[in-house]
Amino acid sequence: MTIAIVGGTGPQGSGIGLRLALAGETVILGSRDGERAASEAAKLTSEHAPLGVITGANNRDAVASADTVILAVPYKGHEELVGGLADVIGHKLVVSCVNPLSFDKQGPVGTQIPDLSAAEEAARLLPEANVTGAFHHLSAVNLHKVETDLSHEDVLVCGNDESGKAEVMRLASLVTGGRGIDVGALRLARHLEPFTAVLISVNKKYRTNSSVALTGVPETGEK
Amino acid sequence: MTIAIVGGTGPQGSGIGLRLALAGETVILGSRDGERAASEAAKLTSEHAPLGVITGANNRDAVASADTVILAVPYKGHEELVGGLADVIGHKLVVSCVNPLSFDKQGPVGTQIPDLSAAEEAARLLPEANVTGAFHHLSAVNLHKVETDLSHEDVLVCGNDESGKAEVMRLASLVTGGRGIDVGALRLARHLEPFTAVLISVNKKYRTNSSVALTGVPETGEK
Repeated sequence: MTIAIVGGTGPQGSGIGLRLALAGETVILGSRDGERAASEAAKLTSEHAPLGVITGANNRDAVASADTVILAVPYKGHEELVGGLADVIGHKLVVSCVNPLSFDKQGPVGTQIPDLSAAEEAARLLPEANVTGAFHHLSAVNLHKVETDLSHEDVLVCGNDESGKAEVMRLASLVTGGRGIDVGALRLARHLEPFTAVLISVNKKYRTNSSVALTGVPETGEK
Repeated sequence: MTIAIVGGTGPQGSGIGLRLALAGETVILGSRDGERAASEAAKLTSEHAPLGVITGANNRDAVASADTVILAVPYKGHEELVGGLADVIGHKLVVSCVNPLSFDKQGPVGTQIPDLSAAEEAARLLPEANVTGAFHHLSAVNLHKVETDLSHEDVLVCGNDESGKAEVMRLASLVTGGRGIDVGALRLARHLEPFTAVLISVNKKYRTNSSVALTGVPETGEK
């Protein structure tokens, strides 16, 4: 199984890709600029010598070679970028970790968008794909600090297809060493995505890199 | 300091009131029906013999006697109910734990409302009051099981006034035995409130009563 990360040279995308490769997966970082993606992949490989393989390519080539596509792009330009990949994404499994956020003097806040969430927007743009949402709340800083244990952070996974979510929960366990939690329908992405604004605000106030854990859920995340 | 709970006979309101009274606070449960509130207060008192005092009254009388007002009402009817109390609420500290949620065959989801959150709606209806948001994510079931330790559950507090939030964080510590976390501006209530839909969905899938904890924040919640 090969995983393409669209926006894979950004801090969140490259951090998720690095963690997946460390766990043995085959990862292709995608970027608008394929050479930049290849360069980032080479840097991560030389620094971390992962068990798996990280390479880089332009977004279209990365997606074409992959089984699963992680969308880790800024929300700005999301519609054009994702819509333009619809033909190569086809029926693939898609994981959106896009957070539509705005910032002003009051701090961060979720952006009101027409589809209510970036994941629902992706589902509209990619009508054949199996779209899920996950990985919104992991700190890019901590993803790159590979010695940092993330196993106490929960990855909240939403989607409308059980088998797709099961695969995303497997990837979540590889990324954090902890668990994914199936929170329900894809539309709940509209509540997962902007919760990141709460975390960023907390990070500033408490000078930390916060994330989310749910209490009361069995340790293994088994249903 | 006396705390009025508007909607204090509902499961969430009475649970918060019970926990506050157990911690020694003076609580007045408010209800549209003052006799029903008095009856609920007498029942909680006889069952739990709290250190503090719980009484009941109609919402207006409860608010008039209180320093702090907790809004624990269903979103349906929120505007009329809260707007109708504006004169007795005046400049008081207000804590909204209202969750505007909808339910259909896909499960729970946040309701899109004109003010974007119930807390912001309350701030519009109560222009003189010091409005905060908190207590959205505590399970009413667990609040009433007084032997259940809630200290690992974080109470996320938002508001635009630091002294108001400090008092709400004090109340949060009394309710859970754990900590409140100042997440930032009042408008972040628009992300705290519908996150409850995620928790309710998880509760159904995993047959539990989930809540939220943030990782990475210093244990005491000190800034």
